[in-house]
Amino acid sequence: MPTLDFFYEFASSYSYIAAMRIAPLAKAAGVTVRWRPFLLGPIFKAQGWDTSPFNLYPAKGRYMVRECEREAAALGLAFRLPDPFPQNTLLAARVALVGLEADWGEDFSRAVYAAQFAEGRNIGDAAVIGSLVGSGRDAAAALARAGADDIKARLRASTEEAQRLGIFGAPNFIAAGELYWGNDRLEQALAAASKFATG
Amino acid sequence: MPTLDFFYEFASSYSYIAAMRIAPLAKAAGVTVRWRPFLLGPIFKAQGWDTSPFNLYPAKGRYMVRECEREAAALGLAFRLPDPFPQNTLLAARVALVGLEADWGEDFSRAVYAAQFAEGRNIGDAAVIGSLVGSGRDAAAALARAGADDIKARLRASTEEAQRLGIFGAPNFIAAGELYWGNDRLEQALAAASKFATG
Repeated sequence: MPTLDFFYEFASSYSYIAAMRIAPLAKAAGVTVRWRPFLLGPIFKAQGWDTSPFNLYPAKGRYMVRECEREAAALGLAFRLPDPFPQNTLLAARVALVGLEADWGEDFSRAVYAAQFAEGRNIGDAAVIGSLVGSGRDAAAALARAGADDIKARLRASTEEAQRLGIFGAPNFIAAGELYWGNDRLEQALAAASKFATG
Repeated sequence: MPTLDFFYEFASSYSYIAAMRIAPLAKAAGVTVRWRPFLLGPIFKAQGWDTSPFNLYPAKGRYMVRECEREAAALGLAFRLPDPFPQNTLLAARVALVGLEADWGEDFSRAVYAAQFAEGRNIGDAAVIGSLVGSGRDAAAALARAGADDIKARLRASTEEAQRLGIFGAPNFIAAGELYWGNDRLEQALAAASKFATG
């Protein structure tokens, strides 16, 4: 079965849109998606940025809001810029790794995006993150597990792998060894993954 | 007839791809395109950049080359990064304005892009620009006219207008009063222009 790596950062508005549409498109294309949370912060820091480029370059930031509103509306999704932006996504990314060890990582990731970009909630807050783990699951255990050394190390390793792959933003799709950057490239990446697997 | 403003910068690789595909798509959509050369240099300078973001951020620059090769290949176009990159585009933009006063500005613009991004020629060179004015036309007169005060002022005014419109990169499409940034947004902008005109 063809596979595609989906590198996403919870603070990224375009990753929100990609996360909300990737599952049915991948299913239709017969492609298995590996959900790969990572952190853009260290990558931005390495290129001299201490916040989102949308804050550093206000014209670009204003355009991003307008475009995400348009793109979300076309999919029937709400969009609002959370306050603060960008949010602290370290805990969310670690909990996502915990969920991906089990069967609830994808649902949790979508819930984090909806909470942040549709409802404007602060996903830097552990209580918010706990509430998104899902009913019938032990949120306290998930939050505790998120602080384990191997989970922390795994997130660091994913972020380092992203850097080695040439990643400089989000979302990203790795298909057939190629990097595809941006929500707009999802269809192209899925086609590349399919084509590579079938020769 | 619905109209769309196409703001393009000759140094921009994604503007090259947009310029090569806009005419037939606009014709099919029944949209008139106003070709609007402008300069990104003053806009980049205002946000603290002294060169292209693709030089300032090497990972992004490497990705841009890979992506432009993919996008160009899909359209049957060649792509190479010219040396130097970015090139000095002041003269090319002024000559394009001269050509757009007459009937050869669009052909000239496409020829400048092909010379630079398919053939790797230096469009900062006046001899190269003169050779692209087109056979049967007075290249010396066009180059002389490009130095006239009203042409210089018109290019400055377009660049200032771009800044007022919130432009921060290239290419851009202005349709129904909305800014659409990037070659990927051409189809969406044409649809918006059509829809706006027909109500």
